[in-house]
Amino acid sequence: MIIVMKPGATEEHIGAVVQRLAGVDSEAHISTGQLRTVIGAIGDRGRIQQIPWGAMSGVERAVPVLKPYKFVSREFQPEDTVIKVRSAQLGGGVFAPIAGPCAVESRDQLFRTAEAVRNAGATILRGDAFKPRTSPFSFQGLAEDGLQLLAEAREEFDLPFVAEVLDPRDVEMISGYADILRIGTRNMANFGLLSEVGRVHKPVMLKRGFTATVDEWLNAAEYIYKEGNHEVIMVERGIRTFETSTRNTLDISAAPVVKTMSHLPVIIDPSHSSGRRHLVAPLARAALAVGADGFIIDVHPDPEAALVDGDQAILPHEFAELMEQMKALAAALQVTI
Amino acid sequence: MIIVMKPGATEEHIGAVVQRLAGVDSEAHISTGQLRTVIGAIGDRGRIQQIPWGAMSGVERAVPVLKPYKFVSREFQPEDTVIKVRSAQLGGGVFAPIAGPCAVESRDQLFRTAEAVRNAGATILRGDAFKPRTSPFSFQGLAEDGLQLLAEAREEFDLPFVAEVLDPRDVEMISGYADILRIGTRNMANFGLLSEVGRVHKPVMLKRGFTATVDEWLNAAEYIYKEGNHEVIMVERGIRTFETSTRNTLDISAAPVVKTMSHLPVIIDPSHSSGRRHLVAPLARAALAVGADGFIIDVHPDPEAALVDGDQAILPHEFAELMEQMKALAAALQVTI
Amino acid sequence: MIIVMKPGATEEHIGAVVQRLAGVDSEAHISTGQLRTVIGAIGDRGRIQQIPWGAMSGVERAVPVLKPYKFVSREFQPEDTVIKVRSAQLGGGVFAPIAGPCAVESRDQLFRTAEAVRNAGATILRGDAFKPRTSPFSFQGLAEDGLQLLAEAREEFDLPFVAEVLDPRDVEMISGYADILRIGTRNMANFGLLSEVGRVHKPVMLKRGFTATVDEWLNAAEYIYKEGNHEVIMVERGIRTFETSTRNTLDISAAPVVKTMSHLPVIIDPSHSSGRRHLVAPLARAALAVGADGFIIDVHPDPEAALVDGDQAILPHEFAELMEQMKALAAALQVTI
Amino acid sequence: MIIVMKPGATEEHIGAVVQRLAGVDSEAHISTGQLRTVIGAIGDRGRIQQIPWGAMSGVERAVPVLKPYKFVSREFQPEDTVIKVRSAQLGGGVFAPIAGPCAVESRDQLFRTAEAVRNAGATILRGDAFKPRTSPFSFQGLAEDGLQLLAEAREEFDLPFVAEVLDPRDVEMISGYADILRIGTRNMANFGLLSEVGRVHKPVMLKRGFTATVDEWLNAAEYIYKEGNHEVIMVERGIRTFETSTRNTLDISAAPVVKTMSHLPVIIDPSHSSGRRHLVAPLARAALAVGADGFIIDVHPDPEAALVDGDQAILPHEFAELMEQMKALAAALQVTI
Repeated sequence: MIIVMKPGATEEHIGAVVQRLAGVDSEAHISTGQLRTVIGAIGDRGRIQQIPWGAMSGVERAVPVLKPYKFVSREFQPEDTVIKVRSAQLGGGVFAPIAGPCAVESRDQLFRTAEAVRNAGATILRGDAFKPRTSPFSFQGLAEDGLQLLAEAREEFDLPFVAEVLDPRDVEMISGYADILRIGTRNMANFGLLSEVGRVHKPVMLKRGFTATVDEWLNAAEYIYKEGNHEVIMVERGIRTFETSTRNTLDISAAPVVKTMSHLPVIIDPSHSSGRRHLVAPLARAALAVGADGFIIDVHPDPEAALVDGDQAILPHEFAELMEQMKALAAALQVTI
Repeated sequence: MIIVMKPGATEEHIGAVVQRLAGVDSEAHISTGQLRTVIGAIGDRGRIQQIPWGAMSGVERAVPVLKPYKFVSREFQPEDTVIKVRSAQLGGGVFAPIAGPCAVESRDQLFRTAEAVRNAGATILRGDAFKPRTSPFSFQGLAEDGLQLLAEAREEFDLPFVAEVLDPRDVEMISGYADILRIGTRNMANFGLLSEVGRVHKPVMLKRGFTATVDEWLNAAEYIYKEGNHEVIMVERGIRTFETSTRNTLDISAAPVVKTMSHLPVIIDPSHSSGRRHLVAPLARAALAVGADGFIIDVHPDPEAALVDGDQAILPHEFAELMEQMKALAAALQVTI
Repeated sequence: MIIVMKPGATEEHIGAVVQRLAGVDSEAHISTGQLRTVIGAIGDRGRIQQIPWGAMSGVERAVPVLKPYKFVSREFQPEDTVIKVRSAQLGGGVFAPIAGPCAVESRDQLFRTAEAVRNAGATILRGDAFKPRTSPFSFQGLAEDGLQLLAEAREEFDLPFVAEVLDPRDVEMISGYADILRIGTRNMANFGLLSEVGRVHKPVMLKRGFTATVDEWLNAAEYIYKEGNHEVIMVERGIRTFETSTRNTLDISAAPVVKTMSHLPVIIDPSHSSGRRHLVAPLARAALAVGADGFIIDVHPDPEAALVDGDQAILPHEFAELMEQMKALAAALQVTI
Repeated sequence: MIIVMKPGATEEHIGAVVQRLAGVDSEAHISTGQLRTVIGAIGDRGRIQQIPWGAMSGVERAVPVLKPYKFVSREFQPEDTVIKVRSAQLGGGVFAPIAGPCAVESRDQLFRTAEAVRNAGATILRGDAFKPRTSPFSFQGLAEDGLQLLAEAREEFDLPFVAEVLDPRDVEMISGYADILRIGTRNMANFGLLSEVGRVHKPVMLKRGFTATVDEWLNAAEYIYKEGNHEVIMVERGIRTFETSTRNTLDISAAPVVKTMSHLPVIIDPSHSSGRRHLVAPLARAALAVGADGFIIDVHPDPEAALVDGDQAILPHEFAELMEQMKALAAALQVTI
C-alpha cells in the first residue's frame, strides 16, 4: 500500500501514519518530494488494507500495490489450472465448446438439442432448471424435474452438463445432479452463495457480474477458492455500458487479461453478451482467436417458441456450421478442440 | 408492445406476427410507412412480453410501450405511500434523517453514536450486524449479537432501526429484531431474497443496484410488493460510471424520476455513493433540495478506528452541524423534518 | 510518480528505471517489499510523466501521485477565482442564475425570454447562434445575425450574455459580441479550440465533456489557462452512463469535488443534463444546496415550437417560480443570489 | 416515429399531435390500448424528428422507428463499399493490415518501422504528424515536416499512408500529402471538421468516439458522406467503461453490428483500445475472426524511447510473428490478406 499525503500534511500526520503501520507490524518507507510526501507501507497486506486510510488526517489517498486476491493469481500458481469433467477438459490448451438450451423446457426440446450439439462436437451440455427472471411474472424453470431430464440426457449422449444455482439452499440438491455448477452474473457478488459452492466437490463456472471489474471478478473467484474448491472457471459474458445495439458489451480483452493475472480457465458467452442471434458465430470465432479456453452458447431447435431468451439462441444447423469454422480456426492456431 | 418489422419484411412475416398475437388473445394494429411496417400489439402485456420477438423472421425489434412493473407505479396508485415506524415517518411530505454506524462494532460505539444522532434530530437509527464484504478476509459483522445491541439501543434512545439482510435464511431471525429490513446494492437482483422479504411484515429499504437502471430497480420493488409487502422504501446510493473521483456517482436525478414514476418513498445515501467524508454534507443538503424523502448517513465516533467504511463516516458533531443546515433548508422549502 | 515493478523484476530492471530517472534529473526512492519492489520517482513531474513506463521491462505499472494540471489547482492558488462581467459575478460566495433560450430563433423569442428571466432575477443571459447538431439535417443556428440580436438584448435588459463557440475560426468574431464564450461538451477535448479561446480576453465557460472524468475536465481548463486566459468557469452538465431515464446523469458530486481540487467557479446545467422539463427545478435547487456557484437553464416562451431542445426548456413563469424558491434557499444557506 | 401518450392524455392532447403531424404533411395512425394511446407518425422522417415531442402536453415520449442516418445504411446501398488506395484495398472480402508508428519522431524511426511492416505484409502505413495530447506540456508532433517524411516513406516502400487531421484549417494541407485522412476519437463529433473532410477527395478513417454509440458513430459518417465524400472507413478503437484493466474496452461486437447496419468497411485498432502491448496480438487475431476488414496497429522499433504511447507499441519482430498467425487464420476463414 502506498499512502499519499496531502500537500499540507504535517510531521504529526506523517508520524500518525507511521505509528498506525507499526500497530500492524508493518514498516513505513517515507519519500519526501517537493509537493507531496509518499509513504510506502511494507508488511501484511490484509492488515494494512483494513485501516481506513482516507479517514486519517493529512492523508490524501491510499493506492494499493497488490491485488486483493492471492490464491487465484498467477503469482501464487504459475501453471494453468486444468479441469477435467468426464471426457471433457477445460484449460490447458484445449478449447471447450459448451452448448445447449438456455432453459430446459421439455424432454423433447432438451434431447433434440443435446443430440445435435453432441454430433456437431460440443463436449459439455448447458441447460438450466432454475432461472433468475427480472420480472416476477416470467417462466422460472422446471426446477428439479429439469435437473432429472439433464441427468438423463447426460447418460444418453455422454455429455456432462452445467446448471445454474441461484439460492444457497439449493446447492446441495443441484450438486447431486450437475457435473458443473454455474453462478450467474447477478449472483457474482452474492458472497453467501459463493461460500456455499466453495464447499462442494464440483467445478464452478463463475460468470462475471455485468458491472464487475476484472479485479472484482477474480476476487469473487477467491471467495470460492479459499473455501477449498479450486476448480473455478471464469465466464466473460459482457458488461453494462452505454452502448445499446447489443444487450451488453462483450469485453473480449478480459480473456487475455484474466489469463495473464490468473491461472484459472476463461471461457466466453457470445449468446448472453450480445443478445442477438446473428452475432453469436462471429463472437464465438473471436473467442478462439483471442485465446479463450471455450465458449458457452444457447442452442434451441425452435427459438421462436423458446420460453427464455429465444432472441439469442441459434439453431442446431447453425451451430454445426459454426463448429466447422471453429475446427478450421483451431487447426490454424494449433489449439485442440 | 410495438413490433418494428425489417425493411424487407413480407406479407407472410407480418401475418405470422398477427397470428402470434392472436395466440395470446391480442390485437395487431398495422401501420405501413414508406420504409417500415410497424405493428402495435394491444392485449395482455405480460403474455405479449413473453414472446421472443427478436427470434421471429422479418422482425427488427420490439419496443415496449408499458413498463414491466405495475403495482409500484403511480398509475396503479396515484397517492404517495406513507410508511410509519414507531414515531418516524417516511414519505408524505416528511424528510426522514437516518443515521448511525455502518457496522455495529461494540456496545460503546453504537450507543455513543445513537445518542448523538438522536440528539441532533435523526428519527431512525442505522447499524448493520451482517456485512457483505468484497474480500473474504474482512470483518463480516457481529451477527445476532449486533442485532441484540441494536434492539437495546432502540429502547434506550427510542429510535427504530434498520439493518441489512444478506441471506434468505436469515430473514426470519433479523425480522425478529429490526424495525426495517434493508436489501443491499449487491442483492437488488437477488430474486430469492426479494421474495423472502416480500413475505415479512416489516418495511423494506431497497438499495439500488449500483449498476441497475431505474426501471430495473422499480422492477425489484415489484418483486417484493407482489408477495404482499407494500412498504418498500427506495434508496439511491450511486451508480457505477467511468468517474473515479467518487466511489460511485450519486444519481440525484433518480429521486424526482422515481417519485414521478412510483408512489414509493425515495431516500438518498450520500455516504456510500461518494465514499468521501467531506462530500456527505453537500450531498445530504442536495437530497432535501431535490425532493427526496430522507437520507441515510454513516456516523462514527472515531472513523479512523472504524472496522468498515471509515473513509466516509462523519463525526457526531459534523452530523449535528449538518442537521442545523437541514432544518433551515426544510423551513425554506416548507418540508417537515 | 510511483513505479511498481513486476514480481520477477531483476536488479537490471530496477537499475534501468533508476537510470531513466537520472536522465530526467530525478531521484529514485526504492522500497523493497516481500512481493513487490516499488520505486518513488522524485523530480520534475512533466518530464517523468513523458517516459513510457509501461514499455520498460520489469515494470508492472506507474501510478501518478500528482495531478496532470497545475495552474488550475487549489494548491497553486488557494483562494477562489472570482469573475465579474458587467454587474454579474461568478464565484466568491455569489450564486449566479443564468438563463435564456437554448438557441436564438428570432428577435421576439429572444427579447421576450430575456425580459422574463431578467425580471425573475437572472444575472446573465444565455442564447446560442451556432449549434452543434448531431444530425446534418437539423437547424444550425442564426450565426452572426443571432449574435447581433443578443448584443441588442444585452443593452435593452442590461444582461451580459454567454454564447457558444464551435470552430477556432469563429473565436475572434464571436468575442467581438459575447461577454462570455462557451465551449460545448463535444469540444471539451478539442485542444485547438481550447488554445484559441485561451488567447482571448473574455471569460470562458468550459462544459464538461459528457464522457470526461473530472481530472480530464480540469486538464482542459489548464489548456485555456496556460495560454493566458485565467477566467475559466466549469460547467457540470451530466455524464454518459447506462441510465436512460434522463438524457445524461447529472454528476452533482462533481461540484464539491471540483471546488476542493480547484479555485475555479463551478456551475450546473440542469437542462441539458436531464433533458426533461420537470426535472429542471429540482436539480436547480440541488445545485445551490450542494454549493455550486450558479446554474445555466434553458427558458423558452413556447417550448413546443422550439427549434432546438424544446423537450427540456421551461416556461418563463416556471422560471420565476423557481427563482422564488432559489431565493428562499439562498437565504437559508446564507448565499448571495 | 411512434408517439406514446401519457395515461391521462385527453382527446385534445391527441388532436394536437395529429394536427402537428399534419403541419409537416404526415399522417397519424392511432392505436388505443387499455392503458395507453400510441400514435404512429408516417411521413418525412427529418421533419417529424425536428418536433420537440417531449414538450407537448399529454406526450410521454417519442420512439424513433428509423435511424437518423440514411446514406451510410445498408438499406440505401446493399452492397459493400470497397475503397482502393494505390495497391491496397479496404472492404470487399480483403483484410487490410495497417501498421506504423503512432507519431513520426524522426526519419530513422519512421523508415525502420515502415520497412519492417511492409516486409511483414502491411499494406498501408500509419504515422501521425499532429497529435492531440491531453496535456498541454506533451510532444505535439513534427507537423508538416512529419508529413514530408511520410510522403518519402510512401515512395521508398510503396505504402500509402494515413495521417490524422485535427483542425479544419489543416485539412487542405494534409490532404496534399496523405493518402487517407484520419479523424481521431476526440473529434468524432467535431462537426465542422467532419464537413471539411467531407469536401476532400481522399478516403477518411473515422475513429469511433470513445463515448459514442454505434448510431452516433454512423451519424458522424453521414456528416462526411452527405458532403460528397463517400469513402469512409469506420475504426472501432474501444469505448469508455468502468473497467480499468485496459485503457478502453474494445467493443468487438461493433464490427459485425456496423457491417449489418452499413455498407462501409470497418477496421479495429487493438493498440489504442487496450493500451497494453501484450494484448495487441490476441485482439488483432480476434479482429479477423469477428469479420472486420482490417486492423491498425502501432509498431515502434524502440517503444521505451517512444515520445507518444510507447506503452502499447509492439516491436517489428512481434508484428512479423503476428502477421504469420494472421495469414494462417485468413486461410482458415477464406479471407484475402
